[in-house]
Amino acid sequence: MSAMLFPRAAVVGIGLIGGSFALAAREAGLVGHVTGVARSEATRRGALDIGAADEATADAAEAVARADLVYLAAPVKSICEALGTLGPHLQPGALVTDAGSAKVAIVEAAQALPAEVTFIGGHPMAGSEQAGIAAARADLFAGCNYFLTPEAQTRPEALKKLENLISGLGAQPMVVDAARHDRLVAITSHLPHLLAWALCAVAGESGDPAELAPFVAGAWRDTTRIAGSSPELWAEIFRANAGNLAALVERFAEELREAEEALAGGAGGRLVELLAAAREIRERIAES
Amino acid sequence: MSAMLFPRAAVVGIGLIGGSFALAAREAGLVGHVTGVARSEATRRGALDIGAADEATADAAEAVARADLVYLAAPVKSICEALGTLGPHLQPGALVTDAGSAKVAIVEAAQALPAEVTFIGGHPMAGSEQAGIAAARADLFAGCNYFLTPEAQTRPEALKKLENLISGLGAQPMVVDAARHDRLVAITSHLPHLLAWALCAVAGESGDPAELAPFVAGAWRDTTRIAGSSPELWAEIFRANAGNLAALVERFAEELREAEEALAGGAGGRLVELLAAAREIRERIAES
Repeated sequence: MSAMLFPRAAVVGIGLIGGSFALAAREAGLVGHVTGVARSEATRRGALDIGAADEATADAAEAVARADLVYLAAPVKSICEALGTLGPHLQPGALVTDAGSAKVAIVEAAQALPAEVTFIGGHPMAGSEQAGIAAARADLFAGCNYFLTPEAQTRPEALKKLENLISGLGAQPMVVDAARHDRLVAITSHLPHLLAWALCAVAGESGDPAELAPFVAGAWRDTTRIAGSSPELWAEIFRANAGNLAALVERFAEELREAEEALAGGAGGRLVELLAAAREIRERIAES
Repeated sequence: MSAMLFPRAAVVGIGLIGGSFALAAREAGLVGHVTGVARSEATRRGALDIGAADEATADAAEAVARADLVYLAAPVKSICEALGTLGPHLQPGALVTDAGSAKVAIVEAAQALPAEVTFIGGHPMAGSEQAGIAAARADLFAGCNYFLTPEAQTRPEALKKLENLISGLGAQPMVVDAARHDRLVAITSHLPHLLAWALCAVAGESGDPAELAPFVAGAWRDTTRIAGSSPELWAEIFRANAGNLAALVERFAEELREAEEALAGGAGGRLVELLAAAREIRERIAES
């Protein structure tokens, strides 16, 4: 057991991420009493059943009122809304953090919080195309990078305490500027998700599902796995990071045009060069 | 042990696919003596070392001269070239097949073969981003669909024998028209490969590999795994299926434009709709 860091935690949005956080933090003895917040009664029951929460409620304001840690694990827009409304209900000295995949919008929304609470944005590089409390597991964050986006005014003790909590979950806390986070995660996660959905859409226009099914192998399964993710959740992430994503989509379209030209060109050398250069980038990222 | 179908086989290009075929066919007792053909001495030695071949040579003409089964497992262009040159060296009655990922070009090239031999194109929906004889394994084809593209003049007995060979490897033989094969595999395999490389290229333009590395998680790893494939091999596949691929690239660019418009639009509903429709296509393909 680690030292108890937060005697009372409220997990607002106790689904895959919130539920996994609560399971891991309770198992490690890092948090004491956990109140799980979910609109759906089935989710609340699920959180109690798997031992992610001691009590469960649909009322976030009530849940955060006595919490010294508030963990917001809802879709981005809901996190922003919660940051806008929960302020008056928070305890002075409470630490508020979140698990949203786009950080600039959330850090901005957090400016609505009273000065007596500390907000530090977070983003665990973990997840699954699955969703919901039923998919939660205590080891979801084990070994993953967990980004934290403190601001200039963030108290170092609060950051240190949150880093200890993250380390205690088995994850690697990494401090990063929110804008830089959003720019880079757009490349490694948001664009791949959008491409996976666009690929499925092209397949739907180009062939009948039953006709395509026998032609599916590892390439299709791997590249479209993330297209099984929640459209509602991801539409919010895309919109919260729309500027970075739109710029990447433009660049991607240019890459495709270049590949098309090389494909149509007389000699095969240019196409091989393009593919080899791209492969090398992947290797350099993997080796970094 | 199954019944021996081909006492003497020549595997021209004994790398990942050719080597895995030879291992599986020998293990099942479906072929007798195997001659492995490779230009590289290391590959020839590797094929002998892992027991994929009884003898190994760099001379394809010599290898096929006494073979009753010729298995061409080289890149598409090399398969087409072999079909253009090996004719005079083949035994009358020999069965020639291949494992190329694009079939129309190969079936056309096979028209250069003498009338006394039978050619039936093939494509195992198996493989790996790895390449070379060192990655070969006897169970590579186990459970996979294995497409065969006989023509109107193909003798039914020859097709039946080849189907028995494929079944004996643990794969599922499926007869398909070559043009239809190329159209559908462009969707499920060729386009995903091109997208994976284009994604890596965009990442290379948009960030430093060391800067991107901490932001990598499952989405990136899964969608770019196939970008580790051989650029030389895949440039040939893309070029052999350029017409289908170019049409899909156009359609993909349109999907991206539509997603971008939805992203920039005022309400989130359209974007959610697009993603949800794409997800449903993926599910319908998986369930077919």
